[in-house]
Amino acid sequence: MSLTFTIHKTENTARRATLALPHGNVETPVFMPVGTAGSVKAVPQHLLEEIGAAGRGAQIILANTYHLYLRPGHQTIRALGGLHTFMSWHRPLLTDSGGFQVFSLNELRKVTPEGVEFRSHLDGSKHFLSPELSMDIQIALGADIIMAFDECTEYPATLARARESMQLTHLWARRSLDHFRAHAQEVPWHAERYGATQSLFGIVQGGMYPDLRRQSAETLVAMDFAGYAIGGLAVGEPREKTREMVELTVGLLPKDKPRYVMGVGYPEEIVEYAALGVDMMDCVLPTRAARHGLLFTSEGRINIKNRVYAEDAGPIDPACACLVCRRYSRAYLRHLFAAQEPLAAVLNTLHNLARYLDIMQSVREAIESGTLSALLADVRRVEGEAAARKA
Amino acid sequence: MSLTFTIHKTENTARRATLALPHGNVETPVFMPVGTAGSVKAVPQHLLEEIGAAGRGAQIILANTYHLYLRPGHQTIRALGGLHTFMSWHRPLLTDSGGFQVFSLNELRKVTPEGVEFRSHLDGSKHFLSPELSMDIQIALGADIIMAFDECTEYPATLARARESMQLTHLWARRSLDHFRAHAQEVPWHAERYGATQSLFGIVQGGMYPDLRRQSAETLVAMDFAGYAIGGLAVGEPREKTREMVELTVGLLPKDKPRYVMGVGYPEEIVEYAALGVDMMDCVLPTRAARHGLLFTSEGRINIKNRVYAEDAGPIDPACACLVCRRYSRAYLRHLFAAQEPLAAVLNTLHNLARYLDIMQSVREAIESGTLSALLADVRRVEGEAAARKA
Repeated sequence: MSLTFTIHKTENTARRATLALPHGNVETPVFMPVGTAGSVKAVPQHLLEEIGAAGRGAQIILANTYHLYLRPGHQTIRALGGLHTFMSWHRPLLTDSGGFQVFSLNELRKVTPEGVEFRSHLDGSKHFLSPELSMDIQIALGADIIMAFDECTEYPATLARARESMQLTHLWARRSLDHFRAHAQEVPWHAERYGATQSLFGIVQGGMYPDLRRQSAETLVAMDFAGYAIGGLAVGEPREKTREMVELTVGLLPKDKPRYVMGVGYPEEIVEYAALGVDMMDCVLPTRAARHGLLFTSEGRINIKNRVYAEDAGPIDPACACLVCRRYSRAYLRHLFAAQEPLAAVLNTLHNLARYLDIMQSVREAIESGTLSALLADVRRVEGEAAARKA
Repeated sequence: MSLTFTIHKTENTARRATLALPHGNVETPVFMPVGTAGSVKAVPQHLLEEIGAAGRGAQIILANTYHLYLRPGHQTIRALGGLHTFMSWHRPLLTDSGGFQVFSLNELRKVTPEGVEFRSHLDGSKHFLSPELSMDIQIALGADIIMAFDECTEYPATLARARESMQLTHLWARRSLDHFRAHAQEVPWHAERYGATQSLFGIVQGGMYPDLRRQSAETLVAMDFAGYAIGGLAVGEPREKTREMVELTVGLLPKDKPRYVMGVGYPEEIVEYAALGVDMMDCVLPTRAARHGLLFTSEGRINIKNRVYAEDAGPIDPACACLVCRRYSRAYLRHLFAAQEPLAAVLNTLHNLARYLDIMQSVREAIESGTLSALLADVRRVEGEAAARKA
């Protein structure tokens, strides 16, 4: 068994399902916190296992192939038993392909059909990443779900450029799949998990062009991946465009396989996309925003740096039951941030992640009880009110 | 009740006692982690309550008057119910007088018999700290134990300079005590704790001169403080000199009151001083060293940055039962440090503090069973072997 996906209930396009993976079950729709270099920044693993609704913790987290390849190196992690063992996270893991990070390097990279030559952001050393190497790295890391090597098309892009980029992604998807199938049994936990292997997801590209998205979905679905990601979104386009592309692409993907939108989003967005039928999402937003003092609450966002919180004895969010809201005041959190205390990042991150996990728990419960439309309306109302307060 | 000190057992000069304070009991000898700005750097309070022997956590922590006076301000903390409530730490707290921090400013201060004029290290703003203001600030913060305002004599100092400095400390001790006695009932939790007040400790100075130390101890003991600190140590003198001054001064202090050596020390030192009859110690060493990758183990110190740990699957210290040693490898901790992950500071600090708390638990158990000399010999042996390995 490498992956099974069981849908329990649907409400319109939304699905409530269980994704069974070698390291455990994931109840979907799910939000996956990002642990770039093998650590969800500032949060000890045992707290990550406890945060959020009913203290159940994060179900699955994401790590970045690019970062771990450069440091400490995938061979080191393989030698230590794979990423689960290395970082002492024994629940499911997902790694991206490294493509998006290399794409983000801009000046430091050169793309050819063979792969991407790039320079390390750490020391300027030269590297070459191909679909085959991306698979080798991801197999050595041993996440439960791994991603095909793709090119994330920039925004804006002409139709010709988006098509060319998409075709490269398809070529690399094929090579990723072939290489993965030939080496899947090399994953560090293959024997220990009774012959289980990782699951490889394909990534739909096509920029903001519906025809290309359609073509990309068809091509990848024909290759028969274990799941499908919708890539190339949240790269600078208006949010309405993101939503349009998600809605369109979701409709082109097989109903019986998990669908993953990469790199989204704000709380109201993740509810929207779940309603459209997306099963998995990840984003650095809750963790990165936390380190900058931006906190998500049931009534919108607050910036804890704000002077109005200096003597505020209340919690970040009176409706939140997270360990931070149960124990600390806005005044204390503001002080920690102002004094640049390392605890600020720890507590802010714990709260924001708990908020995201709670939102997804609400989404799952709403689908079960057939009330997702009501939840979505409520989320939109809060968002609208918050925008009105700002204006 | 503000403080009771009950000695249960002694072994030579060492004492095993309970210090009962308004916010709870402290089993001594005790090591107090330092939470400079109202946070033991990088550690959430609920973990601070759990670390160390038998998961009992830190019994008492220290905060700095100077830092909290400048930011967020003692009036803000008073308005929020005092430091216990502000930082959500409901066990005992101790604040220093601010004297040592102001002393550390060097160029930015001017000492007169009235007090110290200094400039903030944050924004250069001018301030004046007197014994009376130090008491007002510490009463507003509301720690269970507060310290008289003193001048920490620099090292080296001539006899004349050390005497003059000591006399200033005595003058300030008198003024601290008078002001504290006149305002003790203004502590934020006075009513809530059924009329309890804080306890004020005097600080013995006198540099490295035995005659001055004797004179200082006599003068302060005559003022009848609730406890006595030995200040002006660990300011650059050789360790043998520190030990000599501690031994001499402890012998001059009343047996029935707690004795506190400020700002020490390495693991082997805190065991030495406990054996000499010291009841309380504090130091930034375990927390600060942790943030620089220096970890304390039962077999000496290790620097986690070292390349030899890159593929080391073992824990920091196989003999340690802390949550870090139970879960993470040296290889992972080295990676976190090298990648400058914020989790490095969190985990390293948790381990070092657990180590210090465990050491003090061993000291307490050794005094109870009359085996402190054996423990001390063992600690010295490890220290000697570690030094030999280095040489």
